[in-house]
Amino acid sequence: MTKLKLRILFDTAMLGPGKAELLQRIGETGSIAAAGRQMQMSYKRAWSLVEEMNAAFREPLVSSARGGAGGGGAQVTETGQEVLRRYLAVLEAAKQAGAAEVTALEALLAPATKVDMSEEK
Amino acid sequence: MTKLKLRILFDTAMLGPGKAELLQRIGETGSIAAAGRQMQMSYKRAWSLVEEMNAAFREPLVSSARGGAGGGGAQVTETGQEVLRRYLAVLEAAKQAGAAEVTALEALLAPATKVDMSEEK
Repeated sequence: MTKLKLRILFDTAMLGPGKAELLQRIGETGSIAAAGRQMQMSYKRAWSLVEEMNAAFREPLVSSARGGAGGGGAQVTETGQEVLRRYLAVLEAAKQAGAAEVTALEALLAPATKVDMSEEK
Repeated sequence: MTKLKLRILFDTAMLGPGKAELLQRIGETGSIAAAGRQMQMSYKRAWSLVEEMNAAFREPLVSSARGGAGGGGAQVTETGQEVLRRYLAVLEAAKQAGAAEVTALEALLAPATKVDMSEEK
């Protein structure tokens, strides 16, 4: 199935599929480290993306208590939830608005090489 | 000004801003090498993207005569023009459909650090 990937380039910040997924997974796991691990991302990389997002917006998108036994845990703030929701809304709007053109493009693609999975007789 | 970058991930191919710009510039310059140069891309890289696009669609997007003195020249085929036009239409549809959400996201951004350009008194 065809997918769209969308990056929003603000003058001062960038929001794309990676940061959106990270926010979503932090919300689910309550942990920056766990969210990063699920995305095969180093702890350092996940933290650096969170710091970048927190600095880019008026309010932090993720609040966290670093350290402590087992880590301090992290939450997606209300602003973080709003940013994620609006990013996903732009993506959904793009999908719907572009659907007819995407279908027309699909019709121009070369047929996929078929792998014959039927058993030999 | 906020910009959108859009990648279309088909099952068998990918179409994004780089290939779209390359197609556009080949159309303008009549040359894969010149188009690549304008994008700070190596000749090899530009050719490889063209070959990838040509293989991905039923008809080639770029027709070219390799070699000869000064190179053979290249044209964007009708299919190539259609693919570029439809890609840009998806992008434009995404911009329009997502405009209100993007404006709401902009309002959540931290204010840009202002550089004072006024002369000292």
